[in-house]
Amino acid sequence: MYFDGNAASSADMRYFNWVVLFVQVLGVVSVVITAVWMGHFRGGFAWQSDPSHEFNYHPLFMIIGMVFLYADAILAYRVFRNDRKIFIKVLHACMHISALIFAAVGLKAVFDSHNLNPKGPIPNLYSLHSWLGLFVVVCFGLQWLLGFISFLWPKLGMRARTLYMPYHTFWGVVLLILATATALMGITEKAIFHKDEIGYTSFSSEAILINCLGVILVSFTGLVIYLVTKPEYKRQPAPEEDHVPLDN
Amino acid sequence: MYFDGNAASSADMRYFNWVVLFVQVLGVVSVVITAVWMGHFRGGFAWQSDPSHEFNYHPLFMIIGMVFLYADAILAYRVFRNDRKIFIKVLHACMHISALIFAAVGLKAVFDSHNLNPKGPIPNLYSLHSWLGLFVVVCFGLQWLLGFISFLWPKLGMRARTLYMPYHTFWGVVLLILATATALMGITEKAIFHKDEIGYTSFSSEAILINCLGVILVSFTGLVIYLVTKPEYKRQPAPEEDHVPLDN
Repeated sequence: MYFDGNAASSADMRYFNWVVLFVQVLGVVSVVITAVWMGHFRGGFAWQSDPSHEFNYHPLFMIIGMVFLYADAILAYRVFRNDRKIFIKVLHACMHISALIFAAVGLKAVFDSHNLNPKGPIPNLYSLHSWLGLFVVVCFGLQWLLGFISFLWPKLGMRARTLYMPYHTFWGVVLLILATATALMGITEKAIFHKDEIGYTSFSSEAILINCLGVILVSFTGLVIYLVTKPEYKRQPAPEEDHVPLDN
Repeated sequence: MYFDGNAASSADMRYFNWVVLFVQVLGVVSVVITAVWMGHFRGGFAWQSDPSHEFNYHPLFMIIGMVFLYADAILAYRVFRNDRKIFIKVLHACMHISALIFAAVGLKAVFDSHNLNPKGPIPNLYSLHSWLGLFVVVCFGLQWLLGFISFLWPKLGMRARTLYMPYHTFWGVVLLILATATALMGITEKAIFHKDEIGYTSFSSEAILINCLGVILVSFTGLVIYLVTKPEYKRQPAPEEDHVPLDN
């Protein structure tokens, strides 16, 4: 269904589609670079039979889930601005649950790679990266649950939804930023752990690839935050819609 | 000068002062923890005669400048909401230039510690931390210069200032987040470089201190972003003020 009257003016919306397209390219490139880094430079992927290569699923799945899918789920409201709200809500919830599944498998991969290490288990959850990462994933899961209960089923009353909405959107953006910061710390950990092997201090091609991944992740999340916070790009509600204001 | 009529309503402003106070405590604690980490656990401070201890000024000065002073300079508009605007502007500019001076000395310390290393020079600017960090400091300097020219002296016309203002505030927040993310990466680098010495994987007291520093920095910046983006906390212009709207 297309609500012509609700589309933002074309002057406001100029550049929007181009920036969205560019963001998608950055997102896909970050996933491809991570796959190349882990698949080519770090020896490829395996499951529990080979724990050190099982680790390699961790960065890939966390970036697919907690950065790319997560960010695109937030963007959905502004990209599908002319569709029925229930369609966007369901899409938003489905993309977030997919993100959570990728994150869960990504976490399983890193815990396995520590616990099943042939030279004896490596301790878990000692680094700042792991502390922040776990915090982000747990809050993300809670936020999904609260969002589902509040806005989809059983769906709270208008007053409760209006009260919760600014927190839902604020925490959504905060956790996306934290997820990206956690990814940057994870990349740094991996790069420093293997710095001699990588040739990290001598600007080897793997070193450049690693740093480019970080720069692309920052650009990706920065542009997504820009797109989802710029007031001119806000989706306008259809007149007959059951509307919860985004900021109260 | 006190503009009673411009103060936000007390209902809107509840908690504001308490959160500001709490943020200041977090900021001071993060600086103290960094000083204890570098001063006590990493062997204390020195200048060029002892490059490896000269490094220890780097985390301390970057956190004082690029996180604590920077964030407080942004907060100034909302904290000194009832003062004359020119006073807040000058304070904002002075705090930012102090931040830049701390950052410059902090950068000198890390370059010296690489270049003057007794075992031969360590390469500069190879890590993702250094790439992002340099980007942040350069953009921060440019942002200061553009802000000074636009809003203080020679001061641009109303139209130009109105056009620039949303970019000034958006980039101010983005660079603060990036500065904090860069700090987290720097902390991660240092922790992994010295992980055996620190006992990082065995939850030594230094390891806990390091991770707490990261958690406090994230809380500090998160709360500052909350305070400076929440619409209810926005400073209202005095009626006779030459006012540039914050969002257009």
